Amino acid sequence: MATIQDIADKLGVSKGTVSKALNGASDVSETLQKTILETAVEMGYSIRRRREQKKLCVLTENLEYSEPLHFGYEIILGFRQMAEPAGYGVEIVDTTEQLQKSIPYDIFMMKHNYAGAFVLGFSLNDPWMRDFETARTPAVLYDNYIMTNPRMAYVGIDNNEGMELAVSHLKSLGHRKIGYLSGALGSHIMQVRHTAFFHAMRQNGLKADPALTGSSYYITQCLEKHLPQLLKQGATAIVCSHDLLANAVMVQCQQLGLRVPSDISITGFDDLPMSAYTSPPLTTVRQERTQLGKSGYYALDSLMNGVAIGTLLLHARLMERGSSGQAPKLSR
Amino acid sequence: MATIQDIADKLGVSKGTVSKALNGASDVSETLQKTILETAVEMGYSIRRRREQKKLCVLTENLEYSEPLHFGYEIILGFRQMAEPAGYGVEIVDTTEQLQKSIPYDIFMMKHNYAGAFVLGFSLNDPWMRDFETARTPAVLYDNYIMTNPRMAYVGIDNNEGMELAVSHLKSLGHRKIGYLSGALGSHIMQVRHTAFFHAMRQNGLKADPALTGSSYYITQCLEKHLPQLLKQGATAIVCSHDLLANAVMVQCQQLGLRVPSDISITGFDDLPMSAYTSPPLTTVRQERTQLGKSGYYALDSLMNGVAIGTLLLHARLMERGSSGQAPKLSR
Repeated sequence: MATIQDIADKLGVSKGTVSKALNGASDVSETLQKTILETAVEMGYSIRRRREQKKLCVLTENLEYSEPLHFGYEIILGFRQMAEPAGYGVEIVDTTEQLQKSIPYDIFMMKHNYAGAFVLGFSLNDPWMRDFETARTPAVLYDNYIMTNPRMAYVGIDNNEGMELAVSHLKSLGHRKIGYLSGALGSHIMQVRHTAFFHAMRQNGLKADPALTGSSYYITQCLEKHLPQLLKQGATAIVCSHDLLANAVMVQCQQLGLRVPSDISITGFDDLPMSAYTSPPLTTVRQERTQLGKSGYYALDSLMNGVAIGTLLLHARLMERGSSGQAPKLSR
Repeated sequence: MATIQDIADKLGVSKGTVSKALNGASDVSETLQKTILETAVEMGYSIRRRREQKKLCVLTENLEYSEPLHFGYEIILGFRQMAEPAGYGVEIVDTTEQLQKSIPYDIFMMKHNYAGAFVLGFSLNDPWMRDFETARTPAVLYDNYIMTNPRMAYVGIDNNEGMELAVSHLKSLGHRKIGYLSGALGSHIMQVRHTAFFHAMRQNGLKADPALTGSSYYITQCLEKHLPQLLKQGATAIVCSHDLLANAVMVQCQQLGLRVPSDISITGFDDLPMSAYTSPPLTTVRQERTQLGKSGYYALDSLMNGVAIGTLLLHARLMERGSSGQAPKLSR
């Protein structure tokens, strides 16, 4: 095994400097410390690294997170559960368009001494989304993707896997005519899920009929315009792009006199806290929110260590509940 | 801020147990320790976590890694550079089909007391690939994807981003008729890059002409069968699925009397150590091997902490070298 002297000789620094770096002393520059640590590993020297106290921030926009039932609560908790034991202070900043316009992202981060950001709830037209394309301070974005900037990572769940789970579940229950209802395709995530649905249908050897799909910004439009069309075409199951829509579709079907799931099966996506309590409880693809938060930290930690993670996707999980069942024997 | 007593009260355990768990004592079960740590974070108690010494393995199959010029060398080094400072011992195991057939993956891991594996160079027909579908011991696979098992993650570079970088680079040099030559489409990674090329062409508003593409298992077939076809159709640039092929295509073009890049531009994929030294040096998409190794550790660490990462993709980076240049003014 290499000694401290060996490492010092190889790098041309003093034995004292190597020793300080291995013990995480603050008077050795971060770059030199990293070089010493990596050289030590390469030479077979056994070490443990310590990390200086630093601050991270969670940047939110248009996101509720203060109560356990809010979508953002567990995401932020998971992030803190990883970051704080690792020695980071975590601060939550509710951003506004006004704040984002008033100061560039990098300057904001530098001013508050944040080493990195976990970005939640941003939409494509948030001003900092353009900053992110060239920013130098690491950021991890939930469900938003910035191409080629090595300081930016995207975390989310694997929507392809999620749709595959939903479609193969319905197929195993005997469904063949499976429809798809979606929110407006203007958002990144709605596009991804829409593509993923068609892909999953093909993978399962089923025909994805464009006449059996519809998307609208307003849920009421989905219910009034697209749903009747799907029912008329003989859909026995409907995959919905998100739980709020799935729940509305389920209620509407029931008002039309259909029984869920014996006449029609409905599945959602997200597993909102409420979805276990709908009537019947909703079969849906779960976004494991605590894990999303934890993986947000993993990705940020790696960006801060110069490992240019671009995309990190969690495995999806199907929550089988009462809104899906055997396909009706006779086609309607 | 919460005290140790507050945490003990909330969980109904003794103050001593909480204190032990926070200090990483080994006589508190791992599950309880995790609960205590997470509760402490949730209640605002400031803690630092320690990790017990454990062993990880790198499972290789058909991979050279002992010399710096070998493809696997830096991948394994990067992995060790993260794992060892974090307190893990890392052992490298060269597996064979025989070994894999003789013992199931989970049993092998348990027998040697490995907490997790980083899997390099496996092909779709390695026996353990089936074990991975249901295995319980975390594994991270380089360039192989196992669907839905929450203990398995895939790491690699973002091939879509890589192809986008290559195609937009060629477009910016004035190329419009861009061909694609590929290894056999039987492998996962060749399929992914093939799809990514067509996607990148569409994204750049270019026509991806099937007559301008070809794939073969043998490089000689690509050179003798597909390349003349591409040249006849007037391709001014050829994107290749991997560096070995790109280099062979470059040499063949030169033997046919074409100048690279003034008559034809060639790009590769991988950035093998040799690719900076070809004649001319090859423009290619870099797989940052040390970072791949490091991200392998990140993904494994997260799986071992119950965060079900499925996919982790590194940002791609284009290495612009001498094999690509301005498109010739007149179409040939």
